[in-house]
Amino acid sequence: MDADKIRAILESLQTGRTDVDDALGALRNLPFQDLGYAVVDHHRALRQGVPEVIFAEGKTAEQVVGIARAISRSGQNVMMTRLDAAKAEAVRAELPSLKYNAVARIGTLEQRDIPPLGRSPVALVCAGTSDLPVAEEAAETMRMLGISIERVYDVGVAGVHRLLARRETFDRCAVTIVVAGMEGALPSAVGGMVSIPVIAVPTSVGYGAALHGFTALACMLTSCASGITVCNIDNGFGAAFAAARILQSASRF
Amino acid sequence: MDADKIRAILESLQTGRTDVDDALGALRNLPFQDLGYAVVDHHRALRQGVPEVIFAEGKTAEQVVGIARAISRSGQNVMMTRLDAAKAEAVRAELPSLKYNAVARIGTLEQRDIPPLGRSPVALVCAGTSDLPVAEEAAETMRMLGISIERVYDVGVAGVHRLLARRETFDRCAVTIVVAGMEGALPSAVGGMVSIPVIAVPTSVGYGAALHGFTALACMLTSCASGITVCNIDNGFGAAFAAARILQSASRF
Amino acid sequence: MDADKIRAILESLQTGRTDVDDALGALRNLPFQDLGYAVVDHHRALRQGVPEVIFAEGKTAEQVVGIARAISRSGQNVMMTRLDAAKAEAVRAELPSLKYNAVARIGTLEQRDIPPLGRSPVALVCAGTSDLPVAEEAAETMRMLGISIERVYDVGVAGVHRLLARRETFDRCAVTIVVAGMEGALPSAVGGMVSIPVIAVPTSVGYGAALHGFTALACMLTSCASGITVCNIDNGFGAAFAAARILQSASRF
Amino acid sequence: MDADKIRAILESLQTGRTDVDDALGALRNLPFQDLGYAVVDHHRALRQGVPEVIFAEGKTAEQVVGIARAISRSGQNVMMTRLDAAKAEAVRAELPSLKYNAVARIGTLEQRDIPPLGRSPVALVCAGTSDLPVAEEAAETMRMLGISIERVYDVGVAGVHRLLARRETFDRCAVTIVVAGMEGALPSAVGGMVSIPVIAVPTSVGYGAALHGFTALACMLTSCASGITVCNIDNGFGAAFAAARILQSASRF
Amino acid sequence: MDADKIRAILESLQTGRTDVDDALGALRNLPFQDLGYAVVDHHRALRQGVPEVIFAEGKTAEQVVGIARAISRSGQNVMMTRLDAAKAEAVRAELPSLKYNAVARIGTLEQRDIPPLGRSPVALVCAGTSDLPVAEEAAETMRMLGISIERVYDVGVAGVHRLLARRETFDRCAVTIVVAGMEGALPSAVGGMVSIPVIAVPTSVGYGAALHGFTALACMLTSCASGITVCNIDNGFGAAFAAARILQSASRF
Amino acid sequence: MDADKIRAILESLQTGRTDVDDALGALRNLPFQDLGYAVVDHHRALRQGVPEVIFAEGKTAEQVVGIARAISRSGQNVMMTRLDAAKAEAVRAELPSLKYNAVARIGTLEQRDIPPLGRSPVALVCAGTSDLPVAEEAAETMRMLGISIERVYDVGVAGVHRLLARRETFDRCAVTIVVAGMEGALPSAVGGMVSIPVIAVPTSVGYGAALHGFTALACMLTSCASGITVCNIDNGFGAAFAAARILQSASRF
Amino acid sequence: MDADKIRAILESLQTGRTDVDDALGALRNLPFQDLGYAVVDHHRALRQGVPEVIFAEGKTAEQVVGIARAISRSGQNVMMTRLDAAKAEAVRAELPSLKYNAVARIGTLEQRDIPPLGRSPVALVCAGTSDLPVAEEAAETMRMLGISIERVYDVGVAGVHRLLARRETFDRCAVTIVVAGMEGALPSAVGGMVSIPVIAVPTSVGYGAALHGFTALACMLTSCASGITVCNIDNGFGAAFAAARILQSASRF
Amino acid sequence: MDADKIRAILESLQTGRTDVDDALGALRNLPFQDLGYAVVDHHRALRQGVPEVIFAEGKTAEQVVGIARAISRSGQNVMMTRLDAAKAEAVRAELPSLKYNAVARIGTLEQRDIPPLGRSPVALVCAGTSDLPVAEEAAETMRMLGISIERVYDVGVAGVHRLLARRETFDRCAVTIVVAGMEGALPSAVGGMVSIPVIAVPTSVGYGAALHGFTALACMLTSCASGITVCNIDNGFGAAFAAARILQSASRF
Repeated sequence: MDADKIRAILESLQTGRTDVDDALGALRNLPFQDLGYAVVDHHRALRQGVPEVIFAEGKTAEQVVGIARAISRSGQNVMMTRLDAAKAEAVRAELPSLKYNAVARIGTLEQRDIPPLGRSPVALVCAGTSDLPVAEEAAETMRMLGISIERVYDVGVAGVHRLLARRETFDRCAVTIVVAGMEGALPSAVGGMVSIPVIAVPTSVGYGAALHGFTALACMLTSCASGITVCNIDNGFGAAFAAARILQSASRF
Repeated sequence: MDADKIRAILESLQTGRTDVDDALGALRNLPFQDLGYAVVDHHRALRQGVPEVIFAEGKTAEQVVGIARAISRSGQNVMMTRLDAAKAEAVRAELPSLKYNAVARIGTLEQRDIPPLGRSPVALVCAGTSDLPVAEEAAETMRMLGISIERVYDVGVAGVHRLLARRETFDRCAVTIVVAGMEGALPSAVGGMVSIPVIAVPTSVGYGAALHGFTALACMLTSCASGITVCNIDNGFGAAFAAARILQSASRF
Repeated sequence: MDADKIRAILESLQTGRTDVDDALGALRNLPFQDLGYAVVDHHRALRQGVPEVIFAEGKTAEQVVGIARAISRSGQNVMMTRLDAAKAEAVRAELPSLKYNAVARIGTLEQRDIPPLGRSPVALVCAGTSDLPVAEEAAETMRMLGISIERVYDVGVAGVHRLLARRETFDRCAVTIVVAGMEGALPSAVGGMVSIPVIAVPTSVGYGAALHGFTALACMLTSCASGITVCNIDNGFGAAFAAARILQSASRF
Repeated sequence: MDADKIRAILESLQTGRTDVDDALGALRNLPFQDLGYAVVDHHRALRQGVPEVIFAEGKTAEQVVGIARAISRSGQNVMMTRLDAAKAEAVRAELPSLKYNAVARIGTLEQRDIPPLGRSPVALVCAGTSDLPVAEEAAETMRMLGISIERVYDVGVAGVHRLLARRETFDRCAVTIVVAGMEGALPSAVGGMVSIPVIAVPTSVGYGAALHGFTALACMLTSCASGITVCNIDNGFGAAFAAARILQSASRF
Repeated sequence: MDADKIRAILESLQTGRTDVDDALGALRNLPFQDLGYAVVDHHRALRQGVPEVIFAEGKTAEQVVGIARAISRSGQNVMMTRLDAAKAEAVRAELPSLKYNAVARIGTLEQRDIPPLGRSPVALVCAGTSDLPVAEEAAETMRMLGISIERVYDVGVAGVHRLLARRETFDRCAVTIVVAGMEGALPSAVGGMVSIPVIAVPTSVGYGAALHGFTALACMLTSCASGITVCNIDNGFGAAFAAARILQSASRF
Repeated sequence: MDADKIRAILESLQTGRTDVDDALGALRNLPFQDLGYAVVDHHRALRQGVPEVIFAEGKTAEQVVGIARAISRSGQNVMMTRLDAAKAEAVRAELPSLKYNAVARIGTLEQRDIPPLGRSPVALVCAGTSDLPVAEEAAETMRMLGISIERVYDVGVAGVHRLLARRETFDRCAVTIVVAGMEGALPSAVGGMVSIPVIAVPTSVGYGAALHGFTALACMLTSCASGITVCNIDNGFGAAFAAARILQSASRF
Repeated sequence: MDADKIRAILESLQTGRTDVDDALGALRNLPFQDLGYAVVDHHRALRQGVPEVIFAEGKTAEQVVGIARAISRSGQNVMMTRLDAAKAEAVRAELPSLKYNAVARIGTLEQRDIPPLGRSPVALVCAGTSDLPVAEEAAETMRMLGISIERVYDVGVAGVHRLLARRETFDRCAVTIVVAGMEGALPSAVGGMVSIPVIAVPTSVGYGAALHGFTALACMLTSCASGITVCNIDNGFGAAFAAARILQSASRF
Repeated sequence: MDADKIRAILESLQTGRTDVDDALGALRNLPFQDLGYAVVDHHRALRQGVPEVIFAEGKTAEQVVGIARAISRSGQNVMMTRLDAAKAEAVRAELPSLKYNAVARIGTLEQRDIPPLGRSPVALVCAGTSDLPVAEEAAETMRMLGISIERVYDVGVAGVHRLLARRETFDRCAVTIVVAGMEGALPSAVGGMVSIPVIAVPTSVGYGAALHGFTALACMLTSCASGITVCNIDNGFGAAFAAARILQSASRF
């Protein structure tokens, strides 16, 4: 509709109802958004098959339902992150097609097929069961983004031979996401083994000097393995999106 | 030579001088490193054309020269990061072929051609002149890694139209590195514009609540644009390596 | 009544019951407060139409009721900030005229008309639904102060075109309050667009490196847009008062 | 010149060389900056008489001279903040018209008259001689912005009667900037006395628990006086700009 | 009984059953505690009329009862600090003579008269109702220590005239305890008014940059009023004990 | 002279030139300071024999000389704290009567006799030679305040018998100042031995987890010995003033 | 079974089915773990009699049961740390042989005798009842590791004579674990008394400046007693394991 | 001589010059130190062959010389830690027998043979050249304590195979000290490989999120390998002493 406004101005000019200076002035006063710029187009490009995402933490079940219902009318897939079990139940009462992944704390409304993204899987590495909710948030998000996954679970720096034994898995993958709490040293060990992009996700697992994940975060940022990049604490969702950016770029360039 | 040790054990077995159990025992006692595992091979794969890197900060000029001389004998390219002007001069006195990029604080010994890495350039974004040393550290590292660069300098969140005007540049690039100090909000703005991987580098520019770069770091980690990943403060070198990991992965998968 | 004490001293002097030195001594010993100084007068000047405010957090419903009842006897308007729903209900049981704004967590007793403050509205900017309670605390406080508001909601740094599209709104406003959590970059973008006063309010929205609002706070303090000032985390009430100071000063000078 | 591009497109349309759809497409592809939008206009509105500002810290004297020379060609006034004495001397060697305020660490090139801003002065409050550099940075910036100043120096919370004695000064001012280090309590005392806007500037003066200014900063953010807003530590320049925003808004609305 | 052991050794020596060297050896091997040294004596000196104290936080009601019952057998007064209402009820079920001060969260068993301590009262200063629990913890502790109190409540830095009006109260007191949360500036104002010892107690009242009391704590430590000393956050009990040390020293020296 | 103004008003009233209402109004408009309130009187009371103090850190030698010269004209004693050796020399060039205590970094101009303060000495406790500058700052300040001192040096928690051996010294003292860096545990040990006031001063001695004195500070604030109070890091001067407040109060009450 | 793979390769070589080069290649491709290296053997050496450990915090009772059941099938002893009472009950419903130590919050399944570790006991030092859960976590872990214990409870820095009186106990012990919260000074006092290894465990006991155990942690790291080493906050389990490492090493070397 | 005092008292009793009660009283009044308790004896036991240690940082060369000269008169060995090259030269001018280890920044006066401590060496592990000063401080301290050393240098988590290859070295050692900066993950990897005591030393190597060693410190405290203990940042000296405590205990028990 914004284009309609511009078209109207241009047609006024074409038909002589306005002159160039008036048209110029009218165009200047149009809000930026009305121009339908590539910002949005690019977003669309990014969002081929990308679900709409609702961050459910701090929202009531009613709010989540309201937003999800509005989005779902467009026929798009919907993802609700950080959705606890009680809210999930409340949402399902209103939206019975909701699927709920309890470990990942993600609810989904899947209304269209998810096109695959990337030619190779992402290796998802994780040390212990305590880090699983974050790793599975990344996994479920990647599933919704069409990314295939290879899990490398139950490996750690204090038993590094188990990690080394999984080399072949890494050889098949285009990207690796490494989830770790406590001292957060796992990405360094992985980064020393592989040449693919390493996306590190610190978790808030641990106590005392673990500092709710900040020790793992700082550890990953100062890794002695070059070229590791880091997400916010517990942000499995963001890591999955970072992987999607890489896979999509790889498919375009 | 490690392979020689294993070969000797195997030949002893083949010629009957040892039996299977003894050979098995001998193999078990060989140090891991002797096996010439893929860890190193993979590193080599990563390092096609990759220079050896010396972190010069906290080393004396003599130490830097000593390490550089040892490496350069192999005919490889050498990079010395965080090399200040005084040390650079001292190094050049001993190694006259040293090139020195004063803004990036990087010295290089270029002994072989650098093969190009990646089919598309990396967009290097930077807000102001104060962030230039970090941005140019990334740029010089990328040059040594064979990556081509598109600079998008002098853009900022408090004048966001200048950034929006550079959309076409981003459209040509496979990856973007965004360097920002102070409040570090630039990667959010870039991340909202593009779908390619965004590697954010906080800088220690600023005073007071800038907290020597930690404010920019935390700002980037909590960005409202999904899928941004972050490097350590002032780590232009690491961002370049992260870009190299992405470009190399894209070329393989 | 304090004036009565002074008058008594002066009349003693006038009628010859005391001499100058005794009167001087008596005056010196009067407590400062008794003089009815301009401090209070100025406060009164400030409080033309200003409601009395009760910070309800950490008080019991009984305490809130007690204070509110005492104040309301004077016929003044009363505002209770940080009043949760349970306490609000308990207060209304005692003070049935209580109005309760659940999003803003503010209860009000409106006993007299609120005179308008300022000739132009305040633009209230806010990125997402999570920041609404803080934004609405500012809005409800401004309503009670007689300030008119223009809401600019659902704009963000990672989609900056939506913000730019609202320029005309800003052109009509005398002040802007910008509420933002996470990385808190929105005030920088607004500050680069407008020349009016920008009052930034960080919120505690976010997790991990959001540091309960301190990242947004530090981000706003180090903004690259000049002349932005900042309130405490989640302090929508304080931002509204800062706007009132500006509007009142503008109307006097 | 950007307008020229648009004019060319419109003239092509007017003369029939393009049709509406092509013109629409051409307009869409113009970079935003080329449109000469109000962002810049507004900035100009703000900058009537506003000097260009160079943040000299972390720049070499040569860089400062280079930028200053470029700007000064436009005939505008130039301000160099955080310019130490040695750099100031080096700049003056190249730009002999430089004036240098050593306490404020600001150098200026004054090429045109500074129009007055605001009908009333700003009260500049400061406790001790240690805070003078920050207070004078605010003062010198305000001078360059055309703002008149009333200094209220040598007042403190531990001798609050000296502050109360200056009430009349505050009664004449439209805004007050309060500069304080150590425990930073002065803005609370001022905020309780006056109804005008209070801009608080913490300084890095003090040791130990003064935390390089963060104690004063936090103290000001949590002030019991309502409606105080705060700048970054040592940011006298920013406080002056915030005052300018207020005075300019007051003159427009 | 320890003295008995020593007496036995000495009597053995006196009666010739041991010689000097053996007695010397026997004495050396006695544990220190057995000697009944002045450490304990001094403690007794300090504890004339001083109640035994149980820190109830983190203990179960059963544990508190057990310890209290054991102490009370000695006929001493007992104080239980940080005793919440639920525990107090459980304790009273077992020890019906328990008195409970709900605001101060202190339970007491008063079995003997409390001798007065100090010839002059302690001025107990406090800004607002939120700080009352900490102030009253100090008050109740002082009551149990025999210290008389003058309350100076509802005074603050943002209305400093109310504080100044209470000068006469301070003139009667030997010590002042100043309790303050938020920005914690009240001790500076008091310290500038009086020459008696000022014991500052920060409280955890406030949000955001109040940092759970650390802002008030740092503010008090960096006070511009000389000679103020500070207790831990919310430690009204410790402040009362510090006052007791001062009053007791004053009565001895 | 302020009293003169009030006298003039009162005489006008007495002589019938003004009436009571006018006199009342005139009194109200007098600035507070003009009334010559007890604030100043009390300060004078406190300052019997108290030197004027100049905090020399961050001031130039010229500034220190200027202020010292001005004060010394009044015949008062002057103390310059945090005066380094170079500045001391520069000050002495101008003020030859300067005495300089290099360890305490204090310069003094002693123009009148110092009356003794307190009937008993202050025990000054200090663990090691690294803490001496802070301990001696306290000592020199106490000397200038007329307080006598008993030094208890070279005692520490990791050799606690040396401390216990000094009991008799403590028995003679009215107050103790305990200076400690590193883990700052000494005040706890002293506080468990004595019933007199314990003023703890953390020092910035140590490295790593000593956190520039914050570990010692926090350790002292959380001491298991009741009633210890704490000064800012390295603030020997403040501890001496706190002791003076105690001794003076003891002599009055 | 991994050895079987290697044996197969070697037998192929021996029987001439493969040649040396092929065998060499096959061996290179075996994953590291398959080789049955000493890493695991050493772990076994360490784990003679060592129970398997489940960190129960953050796991559901179901998960704890599942893991415990799986491990217990091997006949090994099992320890569940940080197991709260509710989970313990739920676990016992499924595994009736569970023993539960409520103070230590440890559940155990003891299926085989625990061989004694070390010839001398470990002295377990602890100041107060609040630190008991951490001390008892260490004690229960040591019991399961076969270590004998001497408890030295209810000693503190503010009553150091009680500690000195326990010298003989220390003389019998090979290692000491010192558990302390608040200011955490106890390990310094112990470290000054003994020459055996001192393992310090900070606890999260305390409030305000106790910083949830970080003050005790920092205090212990900066202890003036040489050669003290420190565990994470509240990590009684880790301290017990550190003692086990020492005792085991002592028995081997 | 203290024993002399006690002997005199006892002889007075034996010879009838005093009675038991007087002797008892006299003994009670003896200072603790006079009893010649085991504290000192134990220290002596610990210090068989242990050098006296001077922490030179923050002392002048003169002070270091003075203390060293005093100690050396006793014929003991002397160690000066954190002695920079300039001070070392100044010390040598006065004490020509000084040996100086520039990397370890330790000066020594070796006046007697150093008896060997422990039957097995300590493995000293270190990742890179930047950590060498700390590792060599540990090494030089261990040399002075009579401990033999096996260096395992140039191993890291991002190339973990080099570490695994050194297993045999660890098999020969009784203790291991692991020195690491940056993310500090090396102790976790070592701790997972070995069952001997692991003493971790974080170093201040690194920038930005390395936080001057606090990231490595926190990483080591939260290690997933059980039973690792940690020293202060850069405290190679303390790690060596901790190893000495372990070796000495092993030789006694």
